[in-house]
Formats: sequence, C-alpha cells, structure tokens
Amino acid sequence: MISITQIVVRYQETDQMGIVHHSVYPVWYEVARTDFCRKMGMSYSKMEEVGLMTPIYEVHSCFKAPAKYEDVLTVEAFLNKISEYRLEFFYRIFKDDILIHTGSTTHVFVGKEDFKLLNIKKRFPEIYDMLKNTVEKEKME
Amino acid sequence: MISITQIVVRYQETDQMGIVHHSVYPVWYEVARTDFCRKMGMSYSKMEEVGLMTPIYEVHSCFKAPAKYEDVLTVEAFLNKISEYRLEFFYRIFKDDILIHTGSTTHVFVGKEDFKLLNIKKRFPEIYDMLKNTVEKEKME
Amino acid sequence: MISITQIVVRYQETDQMGIVHHSVYPVWYEVARTDFCRKMGMSYSKMEEVGLMTPIYEVHSCFKAPAKYEDVLTVEAFLNKISEYRLEFFYRIFKDDILIHTGSTTHVFVGKEDFKLLNIKKRFPEIYDMLKNTVEKEKME
Amino acid sequence: MISITQIVVRYQETDQMGIVHHSVYPVWYEVARTDFCRKMGMSYSKMEEVGLMTPIYEVHSCFKAPAKYEDVLTVEAFLNKISEYRLEFFYRIFKDDILIHTGSTTHVFVGKEDFKLLNIKKRFPEIYDMLKNTVEKEKME
Repeated sequence: MISITQIVVRYQETDQMGIVHHSVYPVWYEVARTDFCRKMGMSYSKMEEVGLMTPIYEVHSCFKAPAKYEDVLTVEAFLNKISEYRLEFFYRIFKDDILIHTGSTTHVFVGKEDFKLLNIKKRFPEIYDMLKNTVEKEKME
Repeated sequence: MISITQIVVRYQETDQMGIVHHSVYPVWYEVARTDFCRKMGMSYSKMEEVGLMTPIYEVHSCFKAPAKYEDVLTVEAFLNKISEYRLEFFYRIFKDDILIHTGSTTHVFVGKEDFKLLNIKKRFPEIYDMLKNTVEKEKME
Repeated sequence: MISITQIVVRYQETDQMGIVHHSVYPVWYEVARTDFCRKMGMSYSKMEEVGLMTPIYEVHSCFKAPAKYEDVLTVEAFLNKISEYRLEFFYRIFKDDILIHTGSTTHVFVGKEDFKLLNIKKRFPEIYDMLKNTVEKEKME
Repeated sequence: MISITQIVVRYQETDQMGIVHHSVYPVWYEVARTDFCRKMGMSYSKMEEVGLMTPIYEVHSCFKAPAKYEDVLTVEAFLNKISEYRLEFFYRIFKDDILIHTGSTTHVFVGKEDFKLLNIKKRFPEIYDMLKNTVEKEKME
C-alpha cells in the first residue's frame, strides 16, 4: 500500500531564502504516516492509547528541488521494512508530477509508561501482523 | 521581578518576507517564562511534575518593528496579575534598546491528570504564595 | 464572505501537555487567510509578486478548549475591517461544531522593496476595491 | 575547528510523547552552523548579502536518546568536507556529557538572484579559501 497525501505549503513553512525550510519535511512525513495508519485501519492516536509509541531512530532526507508557498504537493508514504524492534518508512514528494524530495524514517517501538524498547511481535502481536502483512503486500505489488 | 532573557534569532524563525514569522513570538514568551520561573526558584518542569499545568487562555501580541535573522534581542517578562484561577504575564522585546514588540499571556490552572480547572490557592498554596509575593514585590518596585 | 478551511491536527503541533501548542493557531489563521484570498480570486503569492506585503501588526487569540492530535477542525476566516492603512481578519475554530477558539489579526500594508508603510487605496486601488467590497458584502449578509 | 553551542530545550519543541520532536534537531544544527560561521569570522547573514546561499541538499539524523524540556544541551558542529559545489557539516549533541544525537547536512551553493548552482571557488574564491582552510586545519588537529 502506498498512501497518498496532498499538502498545500503554508506561509509559515517558508524561510528568508523564499523556499520551504528543510525542517518542515519530516513534519510532512508525519502527516503522511498518520494518513498511512488511518488507511491501514489503525489510527496512530489509538496505538498510543494502547501503550505503543514509535519514536524516531533515524531520518534521512534528500532535496532535489525546492517547494514554495502555496505549492500543492503530493506526499507518498509506504512501509519498507518491519522487524520485531524497528519500522522503516519511505517517502516521495512530488510537485506537478516531478519528484522533488525523497526521505526515510526508522522508528523503534517503546512502551508509553517506561519509554523502554519493546518487542512489538510479543507485546502487540495483532499490530505486528497488520504491519507485516502490509509490507508483504507491497512487495507483491 | 523582571526576568531578562537574551534571544538570538534563528534562521528557521524567518519567513519569505525576510523577517521573523509572527508565530515565533509566543515561543519566545515561553522561553522568557521558563527563565522567570527558574529565577523565582521554581522550575516549570517541577510544577508539571507535582501535577500543575498552566495552559494558555489568551495571547495578545503587538508588533512595532520586525526582527531579523541573527538579531540579538532582549525579552523582558514579568508577572502582572495572579488570582485563584488565572495568571497574567507581560512581555517586552527590545532590539538595540528599541522596543520592537509587546505581548501578554493569560493562563489558567489545570490538573495534570484530568485537565480540569483548579483553584491554585487551595490545591498548591505554596506555589500561589510564591507567585503572589512576586506580583506584590513588582508593584512596590 | 466567510472562508471555511478544514485542518487536521499534526503530531508535531502537539506539546508535552498533550494538546496543540498555542503558537500553532496563528499558523492556522494564515492557512485560512490563504484560502480566503484564493476564494476572493487573488492569491496571496500574487499580491507579494506585485509588491504588496501585509505583515502582522497585532494578534489576539482566545482559547476556549484544547485541540488534540488527529482532531479535524473547521477554521472560519472573514475580513472584518479595511482602511487605507490596515486590514483586520477574524477567525473562529470549531471541533465537532463546538467553538474552541477565536482570534483576530491586524495587518499593515508595506512595499516589498523598502518595507515601508503604504496607502493601499493609492498604490493598489484594484486590490483595495476588491477587499472593500468583500467587507461590505459581509455586512449585508 | 569545532564550534560549540549551548541549547536549552524550549517547551514548544516538545511533543505529546513528552520528548523533543525530531524535526527540531535540524533547527539546532542551523543554530550551531550560525555560530560556526560567526566564529570563523564570517556571518551567514553577510554571505547571503553578497549573494551566496547554501540550501540543504541532504540531511541525516540519528537519535540515540531523547531530549526533554529544560535540558541543557551541547551542540558541536564542524565542517567535514568542501568541494567546488558542496559543503558537508557534522553535528554531535550531548546531554550531561552523554552523546544523544549525531547528524550531518550537505549543502549546495546557489546564487541569490537566480537560485542556480554555482562554483564557489570561481565565484567567491575568498569564502572558498576560508572554508577550505578550516577543513584542513580540522584534519591536522
């Protein structure tokens, strides 16, 4: 499954170079991830409610062309990998069908109360299966 | 007591107009409030730990002149009023001794667990007394 | 004309209190203003291109109830007043038909090159007329 | 040269997980870069004034431990590489002498007016030499 989210660039997201500040892209990744989870039938808010958090371990961003105020962008997100301890998402951002940005985020699983690393397969097997199936379906597509 | 905080404008805080985006000023108020509490001998982190939160009820900002990237600014914060249910801070921002901005924030008191309004005088009398004394000393100065 | 914009709360917009940080609301006002201008037939990007900028002079925000991650909000924006030197917008934010926030922004008109105050009626009469008509129509509604 | 910058975590920089949001770290890199340039004797504001801009081409971030509100952090920045077309900075962030984060940014050189890639050695030879010397001195240290 590739989740597709439309973003309209906000004025506040620009900087004095006249383009979107680079720190905004991880925020857009997150908007796309929220949509991804919702489309998969499991809101991220609910994951946090049951006690599962997925803080970021690694972010990588590559900027091919700038985005500007009022640009209408398409953000693609898909789950690239899942293991018992980690999750990896890939992102592609398009402006008028031109790829302007690629990115990835790696997440770990931690418990809400103690913020300690956990094995998602053991602690939240249903969520693990749902995510695992999504990755496998993507590979077959 | 007037707390004085120095701020150096960050690149990310600018927008495509070439000036600091207006949504940044409440963030600076907050930095100044953090310093105010620390100088008063009570860190805001500790207030939250004991279960007291002070979400914003009202913000007012007045922009007299713009701030720019790398500007060194002085932010003054002082407690203007406190009642059993509310707290009001005033702010003044200077650039090279010229007043470029004034602001105020009104906060309510809520409990950390239920997020319901509380009477600070009853629930946290020591914190109330400390804040009350600060306001009174300011008036005598 | 009342412009209506839908906002879905982003994770990054929350703070450790578990609610949307107050500095985000002026960003939402701006998203609503962008929509307002577009619906009026004049994109804000184009206004800047012809040399007209409308920096903020004053912001006022009143928080009645918090917004949370993934909340779907409705932001209403309308032009309340226009004179030769200033512009005032009003905002109302709803969550499930409940009013959770009101705000206003006052803007001045400045030239792009010199950033000096200008009389919009003299320098950009067509834009002034368009804005003036919008305010008058609103009053008749 | 390793530039060292002290950062105190702002409340607004936290998210509902109770830790600093990952999108904030590139903003801190930028604060550290600003300091780096100033210590090298060349403010970034002045580089932009003479017509040189250094937008981001790539960002990489690795999160080893979270940062929290009011934490006092040390951000180290140093220039790792420079060629005629690119610049690479490395960052390390410490909390109480424990390394909690590493990052890097790769920048390209573009002209202010046309935003086109330029050869810094040809167009701004003095700036190139200054940066080149800094990298070489670092290697000898």
